[in-house]
Amino acid sequence: MHSDRRFLVGLVGDGVTPSLTPPMHMAEATALGIPYVYRPIDTALLGLGVTELGEILAWAERLGFDALNITHPFKQAVLPHLDHVDPVAASLGAVNTVLLTAEGRLGYNTDTTGFAAALREGLPGVPRERVVQFGAGGAGSAVADALLRDGVRELTIVDLDIERVAALAVRAGERHPHAEVRPGTPAEAADLLARADGVVNCTPLGMAAHPGTAFDPALLRPQTWLADIVYRPLRTALLDAARERGCRTLDGGQMAVHQAVDAFELITGVRPDPRRMTRHFRDLVTSEEILAR
Amino acid sequence: MHSDRRFLVGLVGDGVTPSLTPPMHMAEATALGIPYVYRPIDTALLGLGVTELGEILAWAERLGFDALNITHPFKQAVLPHLDHVDPVAASLGAVNTVLLTAEGRLGYNTDTTGFAAALREGLPGVPRERVVQFGAGGAGSAVADALLRDGVRELTIVDLDIERVAALAVRAGERHPHAEVRPGTPAEAADLLARADGVVNCTPLGMAAHPGTAFDPALLRPQTWLADIVYRPLRTALLDAARERGCRTLDGGQMAVHQAVDAFELITGVRPDPRRMTRHFRDLVTSEEILAR
Repeated sequence: MHSDRRFLVGLVGDGVTPSLTPPMHMAEATALGIPYVYRPIDTALLGLGVTELGEILAWAERLGFDALNITHPFKQAVLPHLDHVDPVAASLGAVNTVLLTAEGRLGYNTDTTGFAAALREGLPGVPRERVVQFGAGGAGSAVADALLRDGVRELTIVDLDIERVAALAVRAGERHPHAEVRPGTPAEAADLLARADGVVNCTPLGMAAHPGTAFDPALLRPQTWLADIVYRPLRTALLDAARERGCRTLDGGQMAVHQAVDAFELITGVRPDPRRMTRHFRDLVTSEEILAR
Repeated sequence: MHSDRRFLVGLVGDGVTPSLTPPMHMAEATALGIPYVYRPIDTALLGLGVTELGEILAWAERLGFDALNITHPFKQAVLPHLDHVDPVAASLGAVNTVLLTAEGRLGYNTDTTGFAAALREGLPGVPRERVVQFGAGGAGSAVADALLRDGVRELTIVDLDIERVAALAVRAGERHPHAEVRPGTPAEAADLLARADGVVNCTPLGMAAHPGTAFDPALLRPQTWLADIVYRPLRTALLDAARERGCRTLDGGQMAVHQAVDAFELITGVRPDPRRMTRHFRDLVTSEEILAR
């Protein structure tokens, strides 16, 4: 029996107006015959900051929202406003999905479950003893946790911000005591890559607005896999270089899709079709890239 | 070409949680294939009053609402918060539909256009020289204006609140200088009804919570038509008595439907099917009445 539920969802964050997450959710809902409205709530545009986050949540509840996705710069700041935080999100200290329910506000993190799903799907069976991750920001935290839950034994996180990377390595290590999590510096890249099974780029380098690569791609060995979480564009200079060298690769699209797949399921209780969402997503990115030329 | 627009609408008012307007809009949108989410924003439940109305509007805009319907007790209070008010609504001093657009907040009144449409549809061709209206509240103002725009020459408005009815008669008379608009008292009912072409009940008497009739139905002559704006239940004691006496009648359902028809068209730019909306509405009321037994 089909229920008559309709869903109202918002994406809270700075600069989210052009985000592909709302159209991705809505296209999937249309395919499933579920009425679904998903609005970007662009805090930069609205002049709202962390101080107003409580108000944003309270008004979203009053006006009938079922859920919010939360992105930069609110993923950490949202935690004190929640009634219950899923253990994975709590250990990460970051929430990107909030369900507004009669029982209270429930927080989850589908960035980390999304990256894990993307890795399983896009790079099945690759060795993952030793991984090097570049970038220790919000996305980096989620990815590190996914890698460690997925069985990585030795994770080195490289970032120019030494304090940030040290703190992330300590936190992630505490949550995964059977793994070794170390901070690294860009100067060690050659040594690290010479021994790595896989490499993940979690820096913004490679985005249209941030050209470049986080490390010299000549350091990649053909047997090393490479995952890039940048998805605008889907084809980054780093991925191109890795493919030229014969590496197996995973682009940022799968993580973007799977965080949305998992959020959609949390919100609606309906498991969406990841392949259809991937097609929606790639169509959206492609038309955007064509427009940008 | 079908556009991909989706609509997000709210109904702001005290006690609107069980209102039939949101399900009526949503059922019609579903029939038209338009994704549409319409949420009740029950200010009584939320502890929000006239002082918070500006905030309600501002947050509805920030969170991506396209439009709001406004009901008791905010139809007058909303005017100073708008950028542009449609002349019919402005002359009435009451707005029940606000479009939140890039060009600003635009106010309309579909209670008055809705009653006019209901009267034309439900009682076509009836004489309307002299009409007696019971009730001078918010609904009464909207109905009086609709009657006078529709060509009523002599309108007597009866209410127990002498100041309120006098003020409404003056305002309505000023807006319709070719008509005669007079206040009346319940004691004059017999005289007034002896000469009336039609009678409209705009009091809450006849609602499940307010049993009774606004005047003695024995005063109705068979050649007088009767319109009742009460729609919960659709069949009031007054309508029953009028039908027994052979009067032509119009129940409150048509006004409820047509205010929604007009609001839906303002919001979406798509003219809905009034017959289909009537069917939705009558189904909703009927199932509610069955449940209430």
